[in-house]
Amino acid sequence: MASSSLDELILSLRCLPGVGQKSAQRMALHLLERDKAGARRIADALMSALENLKHCQQCRNFCDSPVCEICADEDRDQGTICVVETPADVIAVETSAAFRGRYFVLLGKLSPLDGFGPEQIGLDQLEQQLQKGNTREVILATSATVEGDITAQYIADFAARHGIASSRLARGIPLGGELEFVDSGTLSRALSGRQQIDQT
Amino acid sequence: MASSSLDELILSLRCLPGVGQKSAQRMALHLLERDKAGARRIADALMSALENLKHCQQCRNFCDSPVCEICADEDRDQGTICVVETPADVIAVETSAAFRGRYFVLLGKLSPLDGFGPEQIGLDQLEQQLQKGNTREVILATSATVEGDITAQYIADFAARHGIASSRLARGIPLGGELEFVDSGTLSRALSGRQQIDQT
Repeated sequence: MASSSLDELILSLRCLPGVGQKSAQRMALHLLERDKAGARRIADALMSALENLKHCQQCRNFCDSPVCEICADEDRDQGTICVVETPADVIAVETSAAFRGRYFVLLGKLSPLDGFGPEQIGLDQLEQQLQKGNTREVILATSATVEGDITAQYIADFAARHGIASSRLARGIPLGGELEFVDSGTLSRALSGRQQIDQT
Repeated sequence: MASSSLDELILSLRCLPGVGQKSAQRMALHLLERDKAGARRIADALMSALENLKHCQQCRNFCDSPVCEICADEDRDQGTICVVETPADVIAVETSAAFRGRYFVLLGKLSPLDGFGPEQIGLDQLEQQLQKGNTREVILATSATVEGDITAQYIADFAARHGIASSRLARGIPLGGELEFVDSGTLSRALSGRQQIDQT
């Protein structure tokens, strides 16, 4: 191609997840031909995010201020902490609108072989919060994977030592799930965790 | 979500073609959690492209200098001009490595209803080049659509007035195409444009 700053733009866009050569090229040309304002907006937003975003001192989620909006919100239940692996999980739980407590973002999961011990996922910080004594329940919303389960178990043991109850997200058939297409592991968990129907 | 500069980054990434809320979120969090260098690289590349990229004075393709590398390349055939609609088409033809002449990028196609007349697609500039007199052939590589065909016909008439031959890309069955899956329009063009096999 003729132009080096266009080449560099196409190459740089390949840093985005799931974007290969063709998509990067389409994105670069789209921005330059049809949406220069959008290009400037992305560049500004990236620079501003790189400069301003830090981790919340309380929950380790991304935020611009020392303490994030959720942690600073007095209306939210201070007694429940939902422990998640990533900032994306916070967005997912917030979108469900089913939780009004606070979060704690591990930014990883226990995986000693990869160098992720309790300290790397901020458990010392979580312990400080549990020691404050106003936490009633820790909801363990780590992934439904082996590492997620181990991390959840570790934190549950650790909360128990502080006399705090822990819970794990329910496992079962997803909403709208048809039995035929549900995998056998999920089905077996759904069977063993079946719930009684209230008699009216 | 807790953070305004993260929100703005997610919103801004939706300016990219084919990127919705979920992908934008995944891209933003990927860059911030795992590839800060990539984020900075994209921001820099965007700013540099916005500042430095202009259109080549000869072929209207994107380039950093007044005349692009392809136009400035003395080794390329100065006698053939390949007329394409977009800079992406130049990349596509260059990738095929089957053309060693120069290009002319219309940056659009004739579409009077949308306000795209001969002037908007730079035909006055193309005329100046044809008048220089060293062009033997104009290869019309506009899209195989109605507007592409009209644009090609218009330029062919216009080249004929300058006594210059025009050609249009061949239509037919794509490489690896199986007859069963080729649409009837393409098949009919392939039949009417069938080529004699040389007897050996």
